[in-house]
Amino acid sequence: MSEIQKPIGWEREMIKMKTGTFYGIGVGPGDPELLTLKACRILHSVDVIFAAASTKNEHSLAVNIASDHIPEKTPVHQLSFPMTTNRQEAQKAWRSNAGIIYGYLEKGLNAAFLTLGDPMTYSTFGYISKHVKRIDPNIAVEIIPGITSYQAAAARLSIPLVEGEESLLIVSGAAGGDRLRQLSAKPENIVFMKAYRNVTDIRRAIEEAVIEYRCTGISKCSLPDETIIQDIKEFENRPPNYWTLIIAKQKK
Amino acid sequence: MSEIQKPIGWEREMIKMKTGTFYGIGVGPGDPELLTLKACRILHSVDVIFAAASTKNEHSLAVNIASDHIPEKTPVHQLSFPMTTNRQEAQKAWRSNAGIIYGYLEKGLNAAFLTLGDPMTYSTFGYISKHVKRIDPNIAVEIIPGITSYQAAAARLSIPLVEGEESLLIVSGAAGGDRLRQLSAKPENIVFMKAYRNVTDIRRAIEEAVIEYRCTGISKCSLPDETIIQDIKEFENRPPNYWTLIIAKQKK
Repeated sequence: MSEIQKPIGWEREMIKMKTGTFYGIGVGPGDPELLTLKACRILHSVDVIFAAASTKNEHSLAVNIASDHIPEKTPVHQLSFPMTTNRQEAQKAWRSNAGIIYGYLEKGLNAAFLTLGDPMTYSTFGYISKHVKRIDPNIAVEIIPGITSYQAAAARLSIPLVEGEESLLIVSGAAGGDRLRQLSAKPENIVFMKAYRNVTDIRRAIEEAVIEYRCTGISKCSLPDETIIQDIKEFENRPPNYWTLIIAKQKK
Repeated sequence: MSEIQKPIGWEREMIKMKTGTFYGIGVGPGDPELLTLKACRILHSVDVIFAAASTKNEHSLAVNIASDHIPEKTPVHQLSFPMTTNRQEAQKAWRSNAGIIYGYLEKGLNAAFLTLGDPMTYSTFGYISKHVKRIDPNIAVEIIPGITSYQAAAARLSIPLVEGEESLLIVSGAAGGDRLRQLSAKPENIVFMKAYRNVTDIRRAIEEAVIEYRCTGISKCSLPDETIIQDIKEFENRPPNYWTLIIAKQKK
């Protein structure tokens, strides 16, 4: 066997120059057991962990879910993303946060960005990775999918999301019921995410549809204070919170 | 401390009568590391495991993905589901398979049914659990969500599925492009599952749409023989297989 060779000058330079990998990790909807094995392995291996704080509790929630798999020595940083509709302001925040993350990557450190649910589904990760890639197009990005809140809700409620030849539409409820109204041919299954602000208009759009839907609401699915709302009319007396979604299924 | 009491007659009867729990387990798209911790724990704990064989390779695939977590002593049974459009024939198969599963549950054994991807997304599990519930409405059913093929595809391709206020439509490609044609207002993001048979018609529907889409195909995502198809026109010369899906995103 040949003896281990120490790196010579230019090799040391190459090693020094090698940037780290940027991981996007979906930690699932809340139940820590819904993390994937891959997410756990990578959480154990990275040098630094980031989480967004776009809402008051989101940061601590994503970190809490993953906490059993974050070694004590691993630093965890919270990145601020302002809740704004001002595109310039948002861009500025993404650029600045991407710069912070890249500061670690360029030192050859591996960094993970935690996302509630899935990194490719209504997540900040898409924006942040785009901005990291703008700083360095050669950066290695690896994305670990996570269980979404609507999958956990369907499992919890025993409601199939989509079967056979059916369609499933996932919409943000932030625009109310208009996304449903605009569709001449209604899909058999609809998930309204973020159904907290415009729940009355969402309900109205569902009732107006030619197709008759059976609707179930769920808040904080898979978390200890999960609430199931069998009749979405209840939302009139009990306003939904940020973590509320509605599954609407065509009655058969 | 009080001494341990042996069950008296009627208690023994109660214990004997307690039926097992029926678990629907999503094993994810192919990469064994995409199993959730919960799926692994339950696979280790159940008394018997079932998997559907609706296509030639599906059975072995779902079992293979989970194999590291199936104890050697645990029996694994393959259930036949005929590939048929005849509703009566399909119903008969579901009823008969539900009966087989219930045979174990009524003995107090816990049974798991494995599903590729997620049990609530284009899976046989919805039908089978409905039929098990018909035999015994009081049976405990617990569903463990799994990573879907389209989530793994989006992660692999670094393509966000849905962002901000956008919508995402998941359709079965089995009906070709008609589900897209029927929509007056097109969603920003579409996933065509099972895009193998009618891929030419799907491509035509995408091209006809007022919105311009950027499309990427992927086959056997997260499996060793994964193939990425950057230009879906390639499908003309290289017919897609059963495990092909297309992600269409509105060009921005």
